[in-house]
Amino acid sequence: FKCSGGIGREGRGIISNQSDFIILIHFIFVSVFLQASDLIITPATTFKEKPDPTGLVFGTVFTDNMLTIQWSLASGWEKPYIKPLENLSLHPASSALHYAIELFEGMKAYRGVDGKIRLFRPTLNMERMARSARRTTLPTFDQNELLECIRKLVEVEQEWVPYSTSASLYIRPTLIGTEPSLGVKKPTKALLYVILSPVGAYFASGSFNPISLWADPKYVRAWKGGTGDCKLGGNYGSAIYAQQEALEFGCQQVLWLYGDDHQITEVGTMNLFLYWINEDGENELATPPLDGIILPGVTRQSILDLALNWGEFKVSERYITMSDLTSALEENRVKEMFGAGTACIVCPISKILYKGKHLHIPTMENGPELTTRFLNKLSDIQVRCFLFYNQIK
Amino acid sequence: FKCSGGIGREGRGIISNQSDFIILIHFIFVSVFLQASDLIITPATTFKEKPDPTGLVFGTVFTDNMLTIQWSLASGWEKPYIKPLENLSLHPASSALHYAIELFEGMKAYRGVDGKIRLFRPTLNMERMARSARRTTLPTFDQNELLECIRKLVEVEQEWVPYSTSASLYIRPTLIGTEPSLGVKKPTKALLYVILSPVGAYFASGSFNPISLWADPKYVRAWKGGTGDCKLGGNYGSAIYAQQEALEFGCQQVLWLYGDDHQITEVGTMNLFLYWINEDGENELATPPLDGIILPGVTRQSILDLALNWGEFKVSERYITMSDLTSALEENRVKEMFGAGTACIVCPISKILYKGKHLHIPTMENGPELTTRFLNKLSDIQVRCFLFYNQIK
Repeated sequence: FKCSGGIGREGRGIISNQSDFIILIHFIFVSVFLQASDLIITPATTFKEKPDPTGLVFGTVFTDNMLTIQWSLASGWEKPYIKPLENLSLHPASSALHYAIELFEGMKAYRGVDGKIRLFRPTLNMERMARSARRTTLPTFDQNELLECIRKLVEVEQEWVPYSTSASLYIRPTLIGTEPSLGVKKPTKALLYVILSPVGAYFASGSFNPISLWADPKYVRAWKGGTGDCKLGGNYGSAIYAQQEALEFGCQQVLWLYGDDHQITEVGTMNLFLYWINEDGENELATPPLDGIILPGVTRQSILDLALNWGEFKVSERYITMSDLTSALEENRVKEMFGAGTACIVCPISKILYKGKHLHIPTMENGPELTTRFLNKLSDIQVRCFLFYNQIK
Repeated sequence: FKCSGGIGREGRGIISNQSDFIILIHFIFVSVFLQASDLIITPATTFKEKPDPTGLVFGTVFTDNMLTIQWSLASGWEKPYIKPLENLSLHPASSALHYAIELFEGMKAYRGVDGKIRLFRPTLNMERMARSARRTTLPTFDQNELLECIRKLVEVEQEWVPYSTSASLYIRPTLIGTEPSLGVKKPTKALLYVILSPVGAYFASGSFNPISLWADPKYVRAWKGGTGDCKLGGNYGSAIYAQQEALEFGCQQVLWLYGDDHQITEVGTMNLFLYWINEDGENELATPPLDGIILPGVTRQSILDLALNWGEFKVSERYITMSDLTSALEENRVKEMFGAGTACIVCPISKILYKGKHLHIPTMENGPELTTRFLNKLSDIQVRCFLFYNQIK
């Protein structure tokens, strides 16, 4: 992996190649397609005070402006707006409020050491967002055009991107069904909006303090034939009850198990990685495979990409059961365990409460060498290197 | 089962017995509790035209007023309002819109042949609503007090209850998380609201035309350790994709299967009943047990109550697999199959598409004797009898 030019605006060349086709369609359907060139920007004229980046609590402070784009079956995508952040006015029967016809994405804009602002692999988020939209029967969209709208929003709000290498501007694209009727059906109206929030560490304990997990098979996050591989609201609301129970047991997050063999799947709202000496005596970085119940995280993919590129140890998408883990702990084969996600990047795990027993995970004793290396490498890419970037300034 | 006095206002006597305690607490916390006596009623002064009850499409027309009650962790339940129906003003980070921290209920007010308006077993809906609230970490409430607020709303909107024995006023209590921040956590703010919609038949084909089902194990509605036994938004949004696929296969609803043995669980948004001669040669009315993946429907419970009371055939909450069903069809042991829910009451099933084969269910050839009997009996109770009723006028 070496630093190279950003993938940002250049990426839009793909669309330019289709411009004849799009112009033709545009003549027929006017503004059916989501188009960044239609953007109407009427930014806020009063400004909130920007918070100190060191004391930020995740997702509680929002910037002055937002992006909104209305969609209807009859008219398609309307013109995108960048306008002052304001409450949404929603019909009380809106399908997002009754049937959770809703999805979101999470991505970050970083201020690089060169002063430029960049997004981290945003095309992966756009792809996942479109997949979530299909799964929940919400309208899809041109991913490059939406990304360009988001880029514009971040540009308008550029002073909100923290002048800090440990903080960033969290970007929350959201798509909700606004069908104003109670039939359980594909919505004929929707609203896509994007809000921005400057963020520091996700966990109150600080971004690199180890966390403890509560593993109990009685709550299941996702299942085959469900929606666990998409970023739908319903996957999250149903998880909070278990999270509350984890807190009652003195743990910070839930380790989600699956199946009679108690497969390890995800941790809280993060993907999970185990660095260990596997059953065959090999050094291995393992994470559960994308078999339908695992969210395909951008950080997950980036960690796999980096590790494969390093080529220093085996890298596997494979099943890991609690029995595999406990055997490995008994035989001192576990090196590090960590969660991975956009909000926290990586988060070391030090303890698992399972079947009434506290399992000690020696992540911190082992450095945590690999966890730290991923954090540093990903942070370096995010603030010091152009790779994966959508340069916006 | 015989007709008797309504359970309505008399039921509130339970609260009166606790009044000393409540008054004591009230002095300390002011309006922490949801209290119907706090209701502030400022009804609409302009009125929409009431639709013809014969042409109603489910959940598309709403009455002039709504009930809203704000909750916060700091102040508890605020005063309930009955006020003109209007759009909700929600922060774009509201947790209902991102993490589906939301639940709803569905119940109906009927205009009896005596001119009085009554709700059907509303205490069961209040109990389920409170259980859904606990599961999704939303605030619970005094069920009798909320019911009294709903009773008042229906009283204000009494002219919206159709003058018809085939139409009714659908009541949609909704509770949503309005926490204006992006951390995945128990909300500190919530909104409870109730909207009303005059409704006719749920299915466009008419309420007693048989429906066809698409049964494919590739989509799973609910799973053990999940939320399928609560009325949470997330259970519904994730189901629409499968419903779309059912339509593509020429079927009207999804027959939800579960597990490797393809257990029959629910149909669309209804509970499922099979009336057959079982493996032991007994006449049996069977419905899947409440094992965590089945919604405990009020209509389901009422059908079980009626059938047990009749005592004419075996009544079972038991597992039924597709293999059980196909064997029974081959041996001509299936009499009737129907869905049951508040929206449709009962809905006969005539066809199932399973593994590429169309299974004919002889429900209509057999009358449908039992399905019709349940429809008539429940309709009789709803418009001709006081049993289960909350008399409001």
